[in-house]
Amino acid sequence: MNFASDNVSGAHPKLIEAIAAANAGPAMPYGNDPLTDAVTQRLRQVFEAPRAAVALVGVGTAANALALATLCPPWGAIYAHRIAHIEVDECNAPEFFTGGAKLTQIDGAHALLDADALAATLGAAGAGVVHNAQPGALSLTQATERGGTYTPEAVAGLARIARNHGVAVHMDGTRLANALAATGASPAEMTHRAGVDVLCLGATKCGALGAEAVILFDPEAHPGRAWELALRRKRAGHLFSKMRFVSAQMMAWLADGLWLELGATANARATALRKGLEAAGVEILTPAGVNLFFARLTAVQHRALQAAGAHYYTGPADTEGAVEARFVCSFATTEDEVNAAIAALS
Amino acid sequence: MNFASDNVSGAHPKLIEAIAAANAGPAMPYGNDPLTDAVTQRLRQVFEAPRAAVALVGVGTAANALALATLCPPWGAIYAHRIAHIEVDECNAPEFFTGGAKLTQIDGAHALLDADALAATLGAAGAGVVHNAQPGALSLTQATERGGTYTPEAVAGLARIARNHGVAVHMDGTRLANALAATGASPAEMTHRAGVDVLCLGATKCGALGAEAVILFDPEAHPGRAWELALRRKRAGHLFSKMRFVSAQMMAWLADGLWLELGATANARATALRKGLEAAGVEILTPAGVNLFFARLTAVQHRALQAAGAHYYTGPADTEGAVEARFVCSFATTEDEVNAAIAALS
Amino acid sequence: MNFASDNVSGAHPKLIEAIAAANAGPAMPYGNDPLTDAVTQRLRQVFEAPRAAVALVGVGTAANALALATLCPPWGAIYAHRIAHIEVDECNAPEFFTGGAKLTQIDGAHALLDADALAATLGAAGAGVVHNAQPGALSLTQATERGGTYTPEAVAGLARIARNHGVAVHMDGTRLANALAATGASPAEMTHRAGVDVLCLGATKCGALGAEAVILFDPEAHPGRAWELALRRKRAGHLFSKMRFVSAQMMAWLADGLWLELGATANARATALRKGLEAAGVEILTPAGVNLFFARLTAVQHRALQAAGAHYYTGPADTEGAVEARFVCSFATTEDEVNAAIAALS
Amino acid sequence: MNFASDNVSGAHPKLIEAIAAANAGPAMPYGNDPLTDAVTQRLRQVFEAPRAAVALVGVGTAANALALATLCPPWGAIYAHRIAHIEVDECNAPEFFTGGAKLTQIDGAHALLDADALAATLGAAGAGVVHNAQPGALSLTQATERGGTYTPEAVAGLARIARNHGVAVHMDGTRLANALAATGASPAEMTHRAGVDVLCLGATKCGALGAEAVILFDPEAHPGRAWELALRRKRAGHLFSKMRFVSAQMMAWLADGLWLELGATANARATALRKGLEAAGVEILTPAGVNLFFARLTAVQHRALQAAGAHYYTGPADTEGAVEARFVCSFATTEDEVNAAIAALS
Repeated sequence: MNFASDNVSGAHPKLIEAIAAANAGPAMPYGNDPLTDAVTQRLRQVFEAPRAAVALVGVGTAANALALATLCPPWGAIYAHRIAHIEVDECNAPEFFTGGAKLTQIDGAHALLDADALAATLGAAGAGVVHNAQPGALSLTQATERGGTYTPEAVAGLARIARNHGVAVHMDGTRLANALAATGASPAEMTHRAGVDVLCLGATKCGALGAEAVILFDPEAHPGRAWELALRRKRAGHLFSKMRFVSAQMMAWLADGLWLELGATANARATALRKGLEAAGVEILTPAGVNLFFARLTAVQHRALQAAGAHYYTGPADTEGAVEARFVCSFATTEDEVNAAIAALS
Repeated sequence: MNFASDNVSGAHPKLIEAIAAANAGPAMPYGNDPLTDAVTQRLRQVFEAPRAAVALVGVGTAANALALATLCPPWGAIYAHRIAHIEVDECNAPEFFTGGAKLTQIDGAHALLDADALAATLGAAGAGVVHNAQPGALSLTQATERGGTYTPEAVAGLARIARNHGVAVHMDGTRLANALAATGASPAEMTHRAGVDVLCLGATKCGALGAEAVILFDPEAHPGRAWELALRRKRAGHLFSKMRFVSAQMMAWLADGLWLELGATANARATALRKGLEAAGVEILTPAGVNLFFARLTAVQHRALQAAGAHYYTGPADTEGAVEARFVCSFATTEDEVNAAIAALS
Repeated sequence: MNFASDNVSGAHPKLIEAIAAANAGPAMPYGNDPLTDAVTQRLRQVFEAPRAAVALVGVGTAANALALATLCPPWGAIYAHRIAHIEVDECNAPEFFTGGAKLTQIDGAHALLDADALAATLGAAGAGVVHNAQPGALSLTQATERGGTYTPEAVAGLARIARNHGVAVHMDGTRLANALAATGASPAEMTHRAGVDVLCLGATKCGALGAEAVILFDPEAHPGRAWELALRRKRAGHLFSKMRFVSAQMMAWLADGLWLELGATANARATALRKGLEAAGVEILTPAGVNLFFARLTAVQHRALQAAGAHYYTGPADTEGAVEARFVCSFATTEDEVNAAIAALS
Repeated sequence: MNFASDNVSGAHPKLIEAIAAANAGPAMPYGNDPLTDAVTQRLRQVFEAPRAAVALVGVGTAANALALATLCPPWGAIYAHRIAHIEVDECNAPEFFTGGAKLTQIDGAHALLDADALAATLGAAGAGVVHNAQPGALSLTQATERGGTYTPEAVAGLARIARNHGVAVHMDGTRLANALAATGASPAEMTHRAGVDVLCLGATKCGALGAEAVILFDPEAHPGRAWELALRRKRAGHLFSKMRFVSAQMMAWLADGLWLELGATANARATALRKGLEAAGVEILTPAGVNLFFARLTAVQHRALQAAGAHYYTGPADTEGAVEARFVCSFATTEDEVNAAIAALS
């Protein structure tokens, strides 16, 4: 009963098998191998982006920071939600990779960026004024850190505002599989067709050992940036010599829609847990759909869940012992775990 | 017959098995798992360094750059051989991670640092002069990029010079297993007992999928640096959420001396290849012992090897078509491959 | 009638004279001259800080960024008001000089940091958690960008909170002369005795051509930081070869209390302007005391002032044409200018 | 008798006068003043570069580092002489401003870059190879740190090699006035007509208090770089609020050919000193022409000069007490000083 994060789960067996299969014979290093080529081809098909440039890395923070550094100069501002992972949980990685860009916080319910707030901030940003950080990049997380999801129309609306201010769009897709499974949108609809320039597609939280793809959908619209991305990856120490073992994960994850299947499973487990807790009297704080949600637990509920062995992160307790708790399910969460947690409150 | 690099080989089967075994059940992320703890304990034993701090990453460039940034401030100079990997092959990663330190080149045969050259450079370095880069760190590669190995005494001699100038010592141990197997020195003798402050221990080139350990041997001698190393790793995007899969590799690699066995195998293959080529009339340019060497191939020899399907890197051809070639064997190189290459010249 | 900024004024004649006087004969470069030594001695006396280390630069942004980089590591957070100059008007200079630290916004009326808000933010900052930016430095502006001033007690209160979280304190004293003149506090009381570690003392806005001092009050409490500050200044291109011309300004400015006299004059002009505008029906928005204030001008008032030739910065007009306007007086603002502006509204 | 450096001299009186004259009345800050506009116009005329973008700063290191950062990305290599000021005497400023570019040393007599050495290094640079620093910028110093001067043809030859490898050209013109006076070439011939993209024109060493111009000759050939240069200057803390005082220096320096006159005077003094020393038996080591030269002084000569009160920098003494000494004259060096030094050896 570990609901602490989707990264407490291991990897899907098919990815382990793929790694073992990739271990046959020599292969050219640093991504000059057939499997890595195949990943690029596969991602171009999946995202209907025939020219996309792809850079694989092993950690989501690296993917985000590399993508942002490619879009935003050192004197730029990156617009993100005030609780976005890149703002809160990456120990200044975006600032490091960009060479000192500034993260500017935008607000919005459920960690979804509010379009009006974004427009207001960009409108007052001081573009062209040498004293001010220059508008650099918009970063949105899909699904958000609070379990929110954008529709393709919502993404397009934010991207349009960004575009009007000359700002490129980054999507932190560490849970994109969950968001696509939840919304039914196609990969292309949710990303470049809605105006996303660069996607960080995260497989790690959804069944991989450690595999993330930075996808620059249209290198021709960003001259020189694909090569820059490759160089930035190398000098940040993220170009694996035995890249085939990352590529093997990504290929297996994308094969036969496994990624969306795993996302859907995680979503279903969270939905069941959510419903069960709600039925048991727990106040749910965030939207339904993807594989995580926040709830307010009374002191009694919290004790009961902990006594049953459930793991989850909480904020500080209020004066009556109530806490805000985050529950995350993964592809590996079982129905038994969900039921056991619900049973603890009955 | 791929002698291009030791990273063209895959992983040793025991490491693949270890990854599969590590995939059982949930584990806390970001290295807060038992396997990662076990790696630290194991490395402390292997290196007889009971207080050592350890940070695992997946790529050697990351290990080196993180280690150097922890030792050398932005206004510092890093002393390294003019063909050291950190100088030539990391796309300015040390400069990036340090925030703009300078690499200062030292010369020496076979990419081994010459002690007199180091002393002379440090003596003229301008320590205490605000206009000059300040002496920051010494970096030596064991074994070197030209197949040289330092004895523990040689390491100690260089470290003593460094210490006299207030300079910390980094060892790039991407091929330390080969060097230890070749010299018979113990891990402790070759590193901290000889004055090395931080070791980057590379498993990737010697049987891992992607696993490198940054080892700060004595955190008490470098107050605050262990925590700094942890923070630097995080903000560089090198803190794997599912760290157990890196740790599993490292544990299997260290178990029962496998790492030294694999290093010895690679060395033995290179030694056999070297002897065979030499017997066939090839001029060998670099010292014996570890798993790589350089040779001068006549145009005829080069054509014969290529016709036989041998892969290796060469420099530019001279006017008569002769080339300098690098041959690297790995733990996975077979005696058949070695013999086939030799046979091509008979 | 230029109330746009205190930097639209030139320099006080005594500083021009001092520059001319400093031009006699050769002097050793890079601050190794007697005038620069004298500045350090003088600042130690003025601030009753006999061990203080001093670094002169020519621009306030450089002073702030150097000071902050000396206090806060790349993985740190700098706590500052959301409209602080370092956050809004330095084009990411602190992020650049620190190597990627994060500015974290604190709120408070009149750009004065609210102590409770600071305590709450620091309490939730994630000290010791590798994913979060680590508490690095507190920055407060005296006087603030909205004309607020801290009492020594208020500074001490904020510094105490900072100290409890291991955070050093930086004061942006670009208008410290104005604040001291307004409050009557001594230089020592307002700074290191109240817990300030590093002061950026700005002469430029108050009569200099371009002269700012970074003062580290107690180098022994910050081992190595004085030398680090010197190196950072050099590598940022802020070590003037003919430093004597900056030092000459600073000496003349500090001589016989000229600096406080100029600050008092600027304050007096602003106070008179403020009273006059208020009497003429203008709504004043910010506290009295120093040399700048904000006011809400109706469309009619705004037109009248502009027609009379007054210069000042405004925010965007509201639907009825009213604007928020900033009025700044300097040591060089005349009573006639003040009276002319007031007369325009009569 | 101070021959230590041209920066031990003060400023030419006309520049002091210009500063005093610029102190009349208010002026818009941050370079939005008529004098600063006039500097740009004047430099465009002087250099026959009607579109040139100009950024004034106060320190030569800042000028160089800003220029190089505008030309060379973080993953780039800057090719410079192994004793170039940017390599030896700027405490890693270029590395800092570029975000971690690498300085690659080129050799050549008298600190003049050898064209063949440059071509060979660029030919082996690994352009397009992700592991290697990418060719970024060529930096040449005119006149060099050893008193060498390039002819316009020599500059053009180096620039052509650079251009063939896609590398932009930076000229460190801290002593350009001396070089132009010595060679008789026009400003345009020596710079952009010979292929220089960005010039750092130094007035400080030749009569200014502190004034340097970064000149991007053809912004249209470098889209976006002029604005980038402006932003980089701001965020590095080099945008003076009272810019008029820097501009006033530059205007006076350029007026009526004063700059070339001062350069010629300094050259003439050095030439006289050189001839006199040579006639007295001193071995001269470097070319004639500009305002500095190196000489080998016997122990006897060295003692005699020092006894007479001459100041100059020396390297370490050899076993017989002989030293290599640098002599620098400035616009302010007098014939009496020169004669006194010569007399000391008679």
